[in-house]
Amino acid sequence: MERKTVVRARIFRFAVKVVLILLALSLPLQSSADERRWGTASLVVVIERQAGSVLIIDSSRHELLGRISGLGNLTHAVVKFSPDARYAYVIGREAQVSKIDLLTLKLVKQVDGGKLGIGGVISQDGKYVVLSNYVPGEVRILDADTLELVKSIPALYTDASEKDGKELPSRVVGLVDAPGNLLIFSLMDANSIWVVDAGNKEFPVIRKFPDVGKMPYDALISPDGRYYLAGFLDSNWMGLLDTWRLERVAPILAEQGKGPEVPLWKIPHLKGWALTGRLAFLPALKREVALVYATLDWTPLAPVPISGTALYTVVRPDGRQVWVDIIGKNGDLIDVIDVDSMKVVKTLNPGPGATHPQFTPKGEAAYISLMDGGKVVVYDTATFQLLKEFPADHPSGIFFANRAHKFGM
Amino acid sequence: MERKTVVRARIFRFAVKVVLILLALSLPLQSSADERRWGTASLVVVIERQAGSVLIIDSSRHELLGRISGLGNLTHAVVKFSPDARYAYVIGREAQVSKIDLLTLKLVKQVDGGKLGIGGVISQDGKYVVLSNYVPGEVRILDADTLELVKSIPALYTDASEKDGKELPSRVVGLVDAPGNLLIFSLMDANSIWVVDAGNKEFPVIRKFPDVGKMPYDALISPDGRYYLAGFLDSNWMGLLDTWRLERVAPILAEQGKGPEVPLWKIPHLKGWALTGRLAFLPALKREVALVYATLDWTPLAPVPISGTALYTVVRPDGRQVWVDIIGKNGDLIDVIDVDSMKVVKTLNPGPGATHPQFTPKGEAAYISLMDGGKVVVYDTATFQLLKEFPADHPSGIFFANRAHKFGM
Repeated sequence: MERKTVVRARIFRFAVKVVLILLALSLPLQSSADERRWGTASLVVVIERQAGSVLIIDSSRHELLGRISGLGNLTHAVVKFSPDARYAYVIGREAQVSKIDLLTLKLVKQVDGGKLGIGGVISQDGKYVVLSNYVPGEVRILDADTLELVKSIPALYTDASEKDGKELPSRVVGLVDAPGNLLIFSLMDANSIWVVDAGNKEFPVIRKFPDVGKMPYDALISPDGRYYLAGFLDSNWMGLLDTWRLERVAPILAEQGKGPEVPLWKIPHLKGWALTGRLAFLPALKREVALVYATLDWTPLAPVPISGTALYTVVRPDGRQVWVDIIGKNGDLIDVIDVDSMKVVKTLNPGPGATHPQFTPKGEAAYISLMDGGKVVVYDTATFQLLKEFPADHPSGIFFANRAHKFGM
Repeated sequence: MERKTVVRARIFRFAVKVVLILLALSLPLQSSADERRWGTASLVVVIERQAGSVLIIDSSRHELLGRISGLGNLTHAVVKFSPDARYAYVIGREAQVSKIDLLTLKLVKQVDGGKLGIGGVISQDGKYVVLSNYVPGEVRILDADTLELVKSIPALYTDASEKDGKELPSRVVGLVDAPGNLLIFSLMDANSIWVVDAGNKEFPVIRKFPDVGKMPYDALISPDGRYYLAGFLDSNWMGLLDTWRLERVAPILAEQGKGPEVPLWKIPHLKGWALTGRLAFLPALKREVALVYATLDWTPLAPVPISGTALYTVVRPDGRQVWVDIIGKNGDLIDVIDVDSMKVVKTLNPGPGATHPQFTPKGEAAYISLMDGGKVVVYDTATFQLLKEFPADHPSGIFFANRAHKFGM
């Protein structure tokens, strides 16, 4: 009996040990998982262009969460978000699409979406990742869950100089989603704007507007999704499409040809970044000004002189400031335009290769990449004080997750 | 020896069993936790007003995630979100504040924030939950992390009829956050609008505008955070404060007194829900119209006749439709105004007590509570087809998490 008792006691002690060891193993895992949770609504994805990686930052606390590598050629890259901001889709130069889970910070899927890409967008209904490709010249539609190919829409046109009427593929630029589950994009080599119905499983091209202007290079859609505005490299106007009508692309004065010309450092980006309620601020081609329009009737107003040529003009979410990313001469500078006085009231010098200013959702802070300075810096937009720095490897594009809810972004 | 072996074998089997049971217990939990992850950017919180509970729905998949109970008196309730949309703050009739973790669906903190409340807001910097209370008449500032009291700002005024100059507390309404980390609110019993600097740890009242109109009942702030607009129960105008100037509250015509008067079923809600870029749609007091203004100069335009009196007028995110929640007579109906033609183009009859239409972030779907129909219904806003129903116990307010990034919401 005594022996039996001893054995039982041993069994008991052994079992207790097993339980304790298992608990010890599982508990820390659980609690660290708890501590490392975050909401996804205001996360930031920063492109590290040379390393082919991205940083994920929580902008609500200005805290680095992690890095995801192996995303291919990111020398040009855009990031799109699922409607719930759980997933980020990183689209690289070679149209490689990498789907990242922003809760686990893991790369969950990766596909080749073409050979050479320039951008992409999520359809209004959130079901598709849509790519605008240079090579092949097409719009490619992928399932947002699986990244499987759903449809390719070749951007074919007939060049007038071709005698045999042979169709050529055009590069596609300025792709946006629009209300009514539309997709709108410009054909760079075909001087055209096309509209696709993404609510129809055949994805028909429901409108083709030819001869809208020479060599569209980018486009934007107004925050309410109503107006699509294309810029042209070789025409002295911009093209405006009212998506409530889909009737014509109206030329509006761009004033591009006026004033002393400077070199074209890089094609400026338009993507919806500088529309306040009543004013639009756009980077000018080859001029050292920001172009200004009254959005009520798209009449041009007096341009605002800036420190160089602009790559991006980005409006603070409350519309009171526009931050201008200077490229080429004075490329390290960021000009801040005060919308009330229509003047540059502050010029920041954040460091080498400062680029791509982006705001927190309510605009109290701005993130800027120092492409040649190895950092992402965060400014208080009221005081212009430096709030925080993150080490980063040649950072470029900065993408806030609240783009999930913005047309064309 | 044989006996020892048997005992050892038993110990071994027992240990194996313990391990298997523990694995069996832990694995399903872990995998279900994996499957049950979601992004927080487009979650929806629905108030169940009588049960004192809320439903959490994932609007990106129209999927019910869970219910959280024990939130007190929710016969009037608002929900506010942390900037990352990880947390929802449910503020009830008795100013009870319940902080809910939207990743774990757990109530993590709960405090009494007063005796009788009407609303609340998160400061622009995300640091504070701010309450507008009826009793005591005050603005109360809580730490958003801990819900600890940071400051109470008594809304005291001197009634002209009081001979001894005694100060009385006023009910506080129309509380919003504004750019520059401001808080703006109206004193219902003092006919005043006050402005507080929430970026200063003393929370000073930096402006007091007296005699702005008789009995302010609610207010809104324009989506860009520039204009604060207050409605008055006993004055025939609205009050407009330009937050870039903070100089005066300008009266703008409300047209409230015109036309046949109908009973005041309930005080309409203004909260920023019907401002398109160029037009504002507001519910009218005691009239069967939606009021319309040109936001450029706040001139009144022709009101749009509707099926009854409006409690809410809610603009679809693309500004092309305004959905009007009718209260009292025809209270089950929702009118849809087409902004292009300025007419009601569709009247929905979703069911008993239909109220509080709210849109998904890009507006392709609308959620509506059937307060007396035990359901939340979801419509496709392009086709008006019913997409989904969720059983719900007397549902009322519907709050999308993208409010986290909107001023005053």
